[in-house]
Amino acid sequence: MTRATGAVAGAASGSDFLQLNVGDAPAGGLADWLSQQLRLAIADGRLPLGSRLPPSRVLATELQVSRGVVTEAYRCLTEDGHVAGRGRGGTVVVAMPVTAEPAPTGRPPAAAGRDAPAGGRGSAADRVFRDEPDTQVFATLRSVPAQVDLTPGVPDLAAFPRAAWLRAERAVLGELSASALGYGDERGAPGLRQAVASWLARTRGIRAHPDEVLIVAGVSQSLALLARVLQADGIAEVAVEEPGSLGARQQLAAWGVRTPPVRLDEEGVRVDELRASGARAVLLTPAHAFPSGVVLGGERRRELMDWACQPGPGGLVIEDDYDAEHRYDRPPVPALRSMMPERVCYAGSVSKLLAPALRVGWLLAPPRYREELAAAKRVSDHGTAVLPQLVVARLMESGTLERQLRMLRRRHRRRRDAMIEAIAAHLPDARVHGAAAGLHLMITFDGTALDDTALAAAALARGVKAQPLSWHTQRPGPPGLVLGYAATTPTAIREAVATLAEVRHDVV
Amino acid sequence: MTRATGAVAGAASGSDFLQLNVGDAPAGGLADWLSQQLRLAIADGRLPLGSRLPPSRVLATELQVSRGVVTEAYRCLTEDGHVAGRGRGGTVVVAMPVTAEPAPTGRPPAAAGRDAPAGGRGSAADRVFRDEPDTQVFATLRSVPAQVDLTPGVPDLAAFPRAAWLRAERAVLGELSASALGYGDERGAPGLRQAVASWLARTRGIRAHPDEVLIVAGVSQSLALLARVLQADGIAEVAVEEPGSLGARQQLAAWGVRTPPVRLDEEGVRVDELRASGARAVLLTPAHAFPSGVVLGGERRRELMDWACQPGPGGLVIEDDYDAEHRYDRPPVPALRSMMPERVCYAGSVSKLLAPALRVGWLLAPPRYREELAAAKRVSDHGTAVLPQLVVARLMESGTLERQLRMLRRRHRRRRDAMIEAIAAHLPDARVHGAAAGLHLMITFDGTALDDTALAAAALARGVKAQPLSWHTQRPGPPGLVLGYAATTPTAIREAVATLAEVRHDVV
Repeated sequence: MTRATGAVAGAASGSDFLQLNVGDAPAGGLADWLSQQLRLAIADGRLPLGSRLPPSRVLATELQVSRGVVTEAYRCLTEDGHVAGRGRGGTVVVAMPVTAEPAPTGRPPAAAGRDAPAGGRGSAADRVFRDEPDTQVFATLRSVPAQVDLTPGVPDLAAFPRAAWLRAERAVLGELSASALGYGDERGAPGLRQAVASWLARTRGIRAHPDEVLIVAGVSQSLALLARVLQADGIAEVAVEEPGSLGARQQLAAWGVRTPPVRLDEEGVRVDELRASGARAVLLTPAHAFPSGVVLGGERRRELMDWACQPGPGGLVIEDDYDAEHRYDRPPVPALRSMMPERVCYAGSVSKLLAPALRVGWLLAPPRYREELAAAKRVSDHGTAVLPQLVVARLMESGTLERQLRMLRRRHRRRRDAMIEAIAAHLPDARVHGAAAGLHLMITFDGTALDDTALAAAALARGVKAQPLSWHTQRPGPPGLVLGYAATTPTAIREAVATLAEVRHDVV
Repeated sequence: MTRATGAVAGAASGSDFLQLNVGDAPAGGLADWLSQQLRLAIADGRLPLGSRLPPSRVLATELQVSRGVVTEAYRCLTEDGHVAGRGRGGTVVVAMPVTAEPAPTGRPPAAAGRDAPAGGRGSAADRVFRDEPDTQVFATLRSVPAQVDLTPGVPDLAAFPRAAWLRAERAVLGELSASALGYGDERGAPGLRQAVASWLARTRGIRAHPDEVLIVAGVSQSLALLARVLQADGIAEVAVEEPGSLGARQQLAAWGVRTPPVRLDEEGVRVDELRASGARAVLLTPAHAFPSGVVLGGERRRELMDWACQPGPGGLVIEDDYDAEHRYDRPPVPALRSMMPERVCYAGSVSKLLAPALRVGWLLAPPRYREELAAAKRVSDHGTAVLPQLVVARLMESGTLERQLRMLRRRHRRRRDAMIEAIAAHLPDARVHGAAAGLHLMITFDGTALDDTALAAAALARGVKAQPLSWHTQRPGPPGLVLGYAATTPTAIREAVATLAEVRHDVV
């Protein structure tokens, strides 16, 4: 009854080789059952990489189920990144189900030399949560393999629009003048500066002339350039949110900038604390604070504006608008930049829209810093690579990026919902924060003395990568976890949260 | 007799619409004459953009010339970037002859505000050579339009392998795992680090493990990262060649590093002067010193090695191997890195192999600096964009880059020869330096009191962009010019040198 697998690869075919028996399916869960069976078939080689799935109409007829069941199962597999539609080429297997991440690139001999042998007490997996997080901590955590990676801040990378990217790049290469391949304007390609200005006007209500846009290698470079320029202006301190991003804090500290913490409450940053800190600048994530997800409220915005516009030198806001586009339940709040352009350095990037590996971002600064920031960019790297800039510009202008964002929002929303449901089911004492937007949730275990780094370490030992909330605080606070959901499939999310619940019992 | 142009566009056709009369051609110069006529036809619209040239066989028959004459004329036009072979699509017009560069992007209002009205005494064209060159000077010079741009340091950008790049990018996107699109290793994509290690072994005799390779955004970023790391190691002074690159000197100075000059003689850097300077580090271009073209001799290499290996902290060489691959008359000299890896930071990039706009380069440092350089890279920009890295890796491994380099060498050599001939014909009192390699020549007017910035300014006023030698010196020396030939066609080179000779007479 079953055909040889070899006959299947590369050819549309029926389902008999899959040995499916619909009688095994649970009532009401046909689509889930089918996608699970297909996943198994991919994992054990019955559907090898590159092979085509049977046309949905054919499979539905053979299994005597409705065609909707099959298309739903295929949609799940597509979303999970196992198969991809290839137009008239049908639906093709493109990836095996992940059982473990590919082996990480080892750190070089020099770094490895500092560590004890891998797997021992000094292995990266052990070391990452042992001490206070140092500047290597994110690289170390990245290097540890895990079944499920809930590191926050990454969109669904399987959704990266490869075909559209390639089409745009072909168009760019077809039109580019030879001179555009030389040393160009360190402030960015005119085409992208124009596209970003109009993108920000459409999506964030920011009115800016293209000349105000500095193209950078991402928000981290914006912080590096600002650190240099602000210090030259006598600003050696940038207040940061508490809780707030460890990465941003480390980034500023690496450039010699002090980062006094200012607490958030439910309305956002406490402007009274900011005022009391004496800091002349503050780094904020007003649209969806990292990691807490708090949105800066209206009254607090007005207070912040008063602070920024105070007599004398005034206050400067660095607005990291890292995931403002990813709102699920209501329209995004306006950017601070749109309200007081003279007092706000606005930083954004395509890292959460497309992929961090592109290293394309933008910084809009008040006029008094613009020349110095361009000079800092020039002496840092002579400008960002031109081809990716022009491809991003094309994706922005053609509407591709907007379609991508709509698709991501739907997908991320399902993943967020899967995570919230799983938390409610498995971790009933966890409080969920910041679910209205973004790519991650923060959960806290209020009123407990849980050691959240121990929890994260125990989870990692079981193959689930998550960040402890205490990494992102400078002062004592409730223990918790920061859980990214955008880059992980609903199935993996449910498994990972169940694992977290199991290790939760073993950790005091 | 003549067909309408419209009938020609997009269709292979005979030559009658060109109204060519072979009787007009000078004896012995048929190919030159034909390419000139075709150039005119492109310029005046008889051969519009996108139209196909007649097949060489057809045109040869119609003109009653040998087919070699036509293919030679087509080759000239191809090299000049006016037409391109499209396989079975024939030879297609892709660019108009340049009469002036496209209008530059204006500096932003903030910058423009500092300037007097364009074209007046304060225009960019006027300002660029008026004062001591400041850190904006290269950007300002770039912003001035010119008929012929002899700015050094740029390869033939019309030769950029667009089709090969796109093919490689398609392959990369087809193979890339989704996780590779996330935040990756700040030291670079493993694929490129591997490819660079083997490229350097093949082309430069450098044996390096991929872990020793840090991927950066070009040599300018290597200098920025080194400036930070060396200062942390107590090295606040990096000696530089005299004459030596103004850009590199400005780059180091911007990061707080002092740059005492050490003279070159015909054997390269004067190691006795280096020793006397007390500097613990030196930035060198040993394969082809910029701008003088001097090659570091064997005896001098041994002296340098003694200096670097002296007891105590030793000396550190920063080797900028910017155009070592471009040698015309003999094999390249070995890299210093291959002789003393413990004492040499080796910096290279694809800027002179492919295009500066790609912003991909590499830095190989001694073990003691490797971790700190990776950390500096991380806090600067979180790593270089991944897609261009992987495309470059593929071009290196597939042999495309080697073929590109061979093609560039032939093309650049013809351009160099055209420039040397033109200088001999028009500027007999100029002495030519550094012709054996590279992308530029240095000429000096020995024994004269010529003001070379005035000469460069006068040339620019006549549409020829060149850099005065005095920009690249810290001490008095003979006046001269630095003339890039690689990015300019032989025809334009001849015209430009003739213009230089004309303005030479007006400048004291």
